[in-house]
Amino acid sequence: MLILERLKKQLDFLTEIDKLKHIVRKTKLPNSSRFENDAEHAWHLAMMALILGEHANREIDICKVIKMVLIHDIVEIDAGDIIVYDREARQEAKVKEQEAARRIFGLLPADQGRELLLLWQEFEARESAEAKFAAAIDRFQPIIENQQADFYGWRHYGVNAATVKEINRHIGEGSELLWDEVQKIFSQAIAEGALSQN
Amino acid sequence: MLILERLKKQLDFLTEIDKLKHIVRKTKLPNSSRFENDAEHAWHLAMMALILGEHANREIDICKVIKMVLIHDIVEIDAGDIIVYDREARQEAKVKEQEAARRIFGLLPADQGRELLLLWQEFEARESAEAKFAAAIDRFQPIIENQQADFYGWRHYGVNAATVKEINRHIGEGSELLWDEVQKIFSQAIAEGALSQN
Repeated sequence: MLILERLKKQLDFLTEIDKLKHIVRKTKLPNSSRFENDAEHAWHLAMMALILGEHANREIDICKVIKMVLIHDIVEIDAGDIIVYDREARQEAKVKEQEAARRIFGLLPADQGRELLLLWQEFEARESAEAKFAAAIDRFQPIIENQQADFYGWRHYGVNAATVKEINRHIGEGSELLWDEVQKIFSQAIAEGALSQN
Repeated sequence: MLILERLKKQLDFLTEIDKLKHIVRKTKLPNSSRFENDAEHAWHLAMMALILGEHANREIDICKVIKMVLIHDIVEIDAGDIIVYDREARQEAKVKEQEAARRIFGLLPADQGRELLLLWQEFEARESAEAKFAAAIDRFQPIIENQQADFYGWRHYGVNAATVKEINRHIGEGSELLWDEVQKIFSQAIAEGALSQN
């Protein structure tokens, strides 16, 4: 009977997180008029962790990074997706995200809920090697998508080059190689007039 | 320079697999008029592996299962999604899927491409403990989604109970507990007239 109660909690959690498929991001998919959702983004990040993990600055546990990115946006079910370039709104969302993490991971059996909460907090703190790399690809992926969608995001929101560089600089803390790659994309966007220099 | 050539291949692969977000499945999302896509499905399976892995019949490497389910449908970029209840079309798709695996995993640096091809082949062969569990949740997830969408799939395709049981029986090879759970759902669907008994 205990195992069935445990399974019920697990299925309640797995049903709740289905909502992530409806949390729409600000990133357009390449060659598409539609925006990406959080579940697709999390899958793409997990694939990036698997394929690009070798480029992390420090040795990392790839499996831990994969788990981190799979769960990193679940809090947005309650807190919503906020563009990284709106720093004030991002700051305000932090409290909501903390509450969301407690509520949603709290649906799970206590041991699993605690484990995922700790993993999410580690991601947010961005101190461990795994969290730094997870944060790097979490920024790298939308930049790649944005490049392929003719820089829709930067054009639409009128973001300037200095802000983009500052907000994304921490990619270099996770992977110098990916940061080098991103800077080439910045140069291309500036050349094409998609990123303003003022 | 070698590292940049390697990165280029990896990014080409990561760009190609973005197309999985446009491969539409036959499963409706709970409380939604829209169908699920393969990327969302893969993310949800990875979460199921993480949360339900403890219910596998045999001891499994959860990380390996997660990697398997993340990549298991990538071949559908070329071969398309075919409903499991159309056995003839599923059989025909097998050859296309083999070619797709070689083409798409072949975009990666040779060592990574080989690793993912072997992992996909292991999933398809359904012999290892990890492959059996991955296959179990690959069937379990759409059944749960279908239940929450008022059994849309079974009603729409007019599937009968005997076929559903036969096609999904292998869930029990991965997890007896999940198979027990699924059989309760079958009974509910029969009682609600969503699964015919002929």
